[in-house]
Amino acid sequence: MQFDLLSIQSGSEARRGVLQNHRGVVQTPAFMPVGTLGLVKALQPADLDTLGASITLANAYHLMLRPGEDLVRDAGGIQKFAGRSNGLVLTDSGGFQVFSLAAMRKITDEGVTFRSHIDGSLHHLTPKRLVDVQEALGSDIAMVIDECPPGAAARDVVGSAVARTTRWAKGCIEHRSRDDVAWFGIVQGGVHEDIRLQHAAVMSELPFDGLAIGGVSVGESRADIDRIVRATAKMLPTHKPRYLMGVGTPEDLIRGVDAGVDMFDCVLPSRNARNGQMFIPGGTIQIKNAIHRRDFGPVDKNCPCEGCQTVSRAFLRHLYIAGELSYHRFATIHNLTYIMRLMADIRSAIEAGEFVREEFLGRYVGVPTPPLL
Amino acid sequence: MQFDLLSIQSGSEARRGVLQNHRGVVQTPAFMPVGTLGLVKALQPADLDTLGASITLANAYHLMLRPGEDLVRDAGGIQKFAGRSNGLVLTDSGGFQVFSLAAMRKITDEGVTFRSHIDGSLHHLTPKRLVDVQEALGSDIAMVIDECPPGAAARDVVGSAVARTTRWAKGCIEHRSRDDVAWFGIVQGGVHEDIRLQHAAVMSELPFDGLAIGGVSVGESRADIDRIVRATAKMLPTHKPRYLMGVGTPEDLIRGVDAGVDMFDCVLPSRNARNGQMFIPGGTIQIKNAIHRRDFGPVDKNCPCEGCQTVSRAFLRHLYIAGELSYHRFATIHNLTYIMRLMADIRSAIEAGEFVREEFLGRYVGVPTPPLL
Repeated sequence: MQFDLLSIQSGSEARRGVLQNHRGVVQTPAFMPVGTLGLVKALQPADLDTLGASITLANAYHLMLRPGEDLVRDAGGIQKFAGRSNGLVLTDSGGFQVFSLAAMRKITDEGVTFRSHIDGSLHHLTPKRLVDVQEALGSDIAMVIDECPPGAAARDVVGSAVARTTRWAKGCIEHRSRDDVAWFGIVQGGVHEDIRLQHAAVMSELPFDGLAIGGVSVGESRADIDRIVRATAKMLPTHKPRYLMGVGTPEDLIRGVDAGVDMFDCVLPSRNARNGQMFIPGGTIQIKNAIHRRDFGPVDKNCPCEGCQTVSRAFLRHLYIAGELSYHRFATIHNLTYIMRLMADIRSAIEAGEFVREEFLGRYVGVPTPPLL
Repeated sequence: MQFDLLSIQSGSEARRGVLQNHRGVVQTPAFMPVGTLGLVKALQPADLDTLGASITLANAYHLMLRPGEDLVRDAGGIQKFAGRSNGLVLTDSGGFQVFSLAAMRKITDEGVTFRSHIDGSLHHLTPKRLVDVQEALGSDIAMVIDECPPGAAARDVVGSAVARTTRWAKGCIEHRSRDDVAWFGIVQGGVHEDIRLQHAAVMSELPFDGLAIGGVSVGESRADIDRIVRATAKMLPTHKPRYLMGVGTPEDLIRGVDAGVDMFDCVLPSRNARNGQMFIPGGTIQIKNAIHRRDFGPVDKNCPCEGCQTVSRAFLRHLYIAGELSYHRFATIHNLTYIMRLMADIRSAIEAGEFVREEFLGRYVGVPTPPLL
């Protein structure tokens, strides 16, 4: 995998780059739609091409439990299994899922023992096992397993989580055997800037293809998120891609880019779509609200998605209220179209040397936000 | 609305025709995918174009209750509301739904009083009200309201249902006010051939644009269905379109065409898709079965749908088992593609003067069926 840094915006940390391997080319900053089980919920493979999603995210924890990594390997890898003829797949290790979903878990320096949230079966996830799983999946980019304590965790809890994450990261590097699977390390450290910076330094020394900032947006304040992301990104190697895990509101993306982040993923655009929340310039609408009952205009007249081009808010509300499957697809495509266009807009602005955070926040988030960073 | 009969297959009653109005052209025999609330579940408007669905079915009963026919009228009619720039919409009156879904119902000669299955609200459906509803919806083809007794109903029950259906049909004709909404009558009569034939004669004398055969496949035997459909179709006017309501297995369609039917609708292809049953040449598969767990081939390698062209049975099973929304779309498009291709195949065969029922049954249904008609 190759990453080329094309330019850095003056007056900002915003970076324009290109990430590529034999399977495709990703223009960065990039948003990766989340297809936990291989495919973004309610979509089909061709939709990802229409959206310009040259990289998507899948989840190793989920795929390991169902349908099992051996099956995916035998199907030709996660990309082929999920019907993608082009485009990269990054697999999250599922550390976060082990901590949030698993029925029982026991953490030791060797790894995590947990019970599946699906059938209660017992699993032991070590760095070696995680490498085996992600290599079997054939991920283009694999993530190390990390321990992700809550945002409010005390220093000593965070400290030992970080130490364990480092130990596991080294274990992943040690066991990897495939040249075509790139590996990203994960920087943890909660809201403790000094721990973050130390961990960033340690992770940066390891032979990773990229570095991620993990454990963000797990209960901290907006100000803490901004402070930590900016400080951590600055400590990461200039010529490796930087990935901010699990944040994806327009505001998060604009602030993250401005802090020097290249890659993002988040279920928010697609999950909120399914719950009725759709992006419009400067904010969101909740489609189930009565105000849309007789609104025969589109969600966003300037949006090129099929929903906005063919049906009204009134029709989408009708589908939503009636629990129709079609709604989920309309809304998911709309929200992802919005986010992918935001990212394309950001990339053009950096290319032109004209990326200004406050201008993007004003245009995409609407309500002026006090400068926190 | 205009219907032109192009040819009749020798040695069969199979007819090739063209049905059209200002909104589009329908080549018959035609299958109408069911979009009860305006759109086929899990699909978007463009999918209907891809499928070649030049006419779809919606349900007046459902739309009257939610979102209300006034809203649909104000949105520009059901076609525009549901995002269809071309293509016709036939609305079923919902007589069948009143009898199967409504919480309470009381039938008199004037109409049906019932409580909504959604919110328990009280509704009184008379011929006049039904005309108002379907004219507000802007249906291309509206259906009269009929009383549909169970397949096993006794002669006297069927007899009075038929009398009431006639009375209501006349009421619909009397109250209609829009020239651009065509009306179809419905022939009832259960499995009683003499009642069917009498009713067909009565309905044929009324100034309808087409005639439907209703109350079929509500519990009768295969042999009864075939006998009744064939006998009834023969009694209908040659130069008006004939519509067999609510049947849609490949076998039903082939036998119906052979009996002289021009139009069909059924939820079966789309509903069964959502329940895991997918059509393959000569039969069906149940995608959740363990046999497909490691089947890395497509559902049907000769099918042009996106699912068959991009993903395997193993992947579809994975999506189905995990309850993923994407599955419903893959499967719905696949089953409807199968049915629409069957209909196109039938039309070509009639055009070439080569439609042979047993040959089609052999090819599409697989298991040889004893000739019942």
